[in-house]
Amino acid sequence: MGPMSSPDFSKGAAWQGGNFVPIGEASVPLTDWGFLRSDAAYDVVTVWDGAFFRLDAHLERFMRSCRKFRLDPGRSPQEIFEILSQCVKLAGLRSAYVEMLVTRGQPPWGSRDPRLAVNQFRAFAVPYVWIANEEQRQRGLHVKVSKVQRIPPASVDPTAKNYHWNDMTMGLFEALDAGADTVLLSDAAGNVVEGPGFNVFALRGGRLVTPLEGVLEGITRRTVVEIAGTFGVPVDVRALPADELRSADEVFLSSSGGGVLPVTRVDGKTVGNGEPGAVTRRLLQTYWDWHYEPRYSVPVRY
Amino acid sequence: MGPMSSPDFSKGAAWQGGNFVPIGEASVPLTDWGFLRSDAAYDVVTVWDGAFFRLDAHLERFMRSCRKFRLDPGRSPQEIFEILSQCVKLAGLRSAYVEMLVTRGQPPWGSRDPRLAVNQFRAFAVPYVWIANEEQRQRGLHVKVSKVQRIPPASVDPTAKNYHWNDMTMGLFEALDAGADTVLLSDAAGNVVEGPGFNVFALRGGRLVTPLEGVLEGITRRTVVEIAGTFGVPVDVRALPADELRSADEVFLSSSGGGVLPVTRVDGKTVGNGEPGAVTRRLLQTYWDWHYEPRYSVPVRY
Repeated sequence: MGPMSSPDFSKGAAWQGGNFVPIGEASVPLTDWGFLRSDAAYDVVTVWDGAFFRLDAHLERFMRSCRKFRLDPGRSPQEIFEILSQCVKLAGLRSAYVEMLVTRGQPPWGSRDPRLAVNQFRAFAVPYVWIANEEQRQRGLHVKVSKVQRIPPASVDPTAKNYHWNDMTMGLFEALDAGADTVLLSDAAGNVVEGPGFNVFALRGGRLVTPLEGVLEGITRRTVVEIAGTFGVPVDVRALPADELRSADEVFLSSSGGGVLPVTRVDGKTVGNGEPGAVTRRLLQTYWDWHYEPRYSVPVRY
Repeated sequence: MGPMSSPDFSKGAAWQGGNFVPIGEASVPLTDWGFLRSDAAYDVVTVWDGAFFRLDAHLERFMRSCRKFRLDPGRSPQEIFEILSQCVKLAGLRSAYVEMLVTRGQPPWGSRDPRLAVNQFRAFAVPYVWIANEEQRQRGLHVKVSKVQRIPPASVDPTAKNYHWNDMTMGLFEALDAGADTVLLSDAAGNVVEGPGFNVFALRGGRLVTPLEGVLEGITRRTVVEIAGTFGVPVDVRALPADELRSADEVFLSSSGGGVLPVTRVDGKTVGNGEPGAVTRRLLQTYWDWHYEPRYSVPVRY
């Protein structure tokens, strides 16, 4: 490529250090604590059919995550929106997975004082990410409950979105090796908490249950709770013992990476009649319908 | 700079993707799970006066950490030694902090299966890092015991060296804000475990105590245990309640970033007579003497 050729954003676009670059060229300095100490906060918002879904909620949570970890993105939610929008536009995407993040940066050489570091903001947009493929979404996911315990809130605040995922990844290996599609982690008391990139819901006797503590407060989770409210389906936000999940009438995951994802097998045992349940399917349909509600939509500036 | 100018390795040298680059140019792709999921293992070995100290022990632990996280550095300990040695040589360092690491890489787009990722090895050498500055080493460190709990072994295996440090960093903020120099984290039972980059020892009634579970099995910790053995000082590897630490006769930290580091204040309370203790000083001296023992030394190939 000559110096005048334009960058190829077709696989995604990122913003770093004041510039937009192709996603394949985006990087983090090896010595940034964001890498060397996983000292970072992030958030993911999706674009569907040309519009951000619940952008305000994601920006708000991102700013809150940053404050909890004493990280400063150095720009306003409005400025972040403009960067995200431009990433999506450059990548030419109508549907996208859009991430904003801030890393600690690094203290001056010789110092180990995080207060002296200049925090670094980055963002990127890539094609929409599904945490389950089409076949899995049709038949329902097969999930394994792992013995690996999710990092507890006493160690890392799960409500501040972070990259501490070794527990998730080790659990995922275990689940994939066992022939399942994905994994749910537990807490020390044997309650199911969350999985890599998603919350979980169980339907029992006409009531939905979703875990209370030790989880990311997902925006999709919140959306599901609100939709259930419009259906008159009560939602209990409380501890969810693994046994209650295994004997539920319906089970589904909630994630920005696909919305409402039916689960039809838990630890090899069939859930309900083995097909995505009626309540799950209704929530799923409404989840996607809500993407066209003006109150939840912010158009990308193409 | 023209195309023929040589790279400036004076601040440190790194190896990535088959090339040696100045440390300031070393990076991790934004989409590598090593960053986005802190999915990585690493180790740090030091060079003192032209020789690696206990290189075999560090290489062995690194390979073990990789296996535990199902990461493959893709090269033998001998090949890694050659890369590390070349990094130190290029950086022109007689004393150095040398890190080897492997990241997950990333699965093909659309997949979330870590088994499909091609793992990536990197290494770098920078000037020797002291986790305490000279004044702190002379007067002894002031340490705060934080209420932040170290990520428990049921979530992330602490014996496989990893970058999950949000708990350490949040504890460090708390300690620095309180006027202390650094922090020690606890476990759920109120035992002291470890701090950012170091293990801890307490001397009580002529016996040393160092925590058993929930800690990195430090090579410096092992060295201290071995040195204590030659002194006839017994070492108990067991749970160390925070109160036992606060009422100890002597306290010190062990780390590749400075060896034996005296602690003279815990939670604002003076340890012993407020000066680095006699046993601590003797261990410290022998720690540095051992750097000249041929059995622990591997010369850098300058």
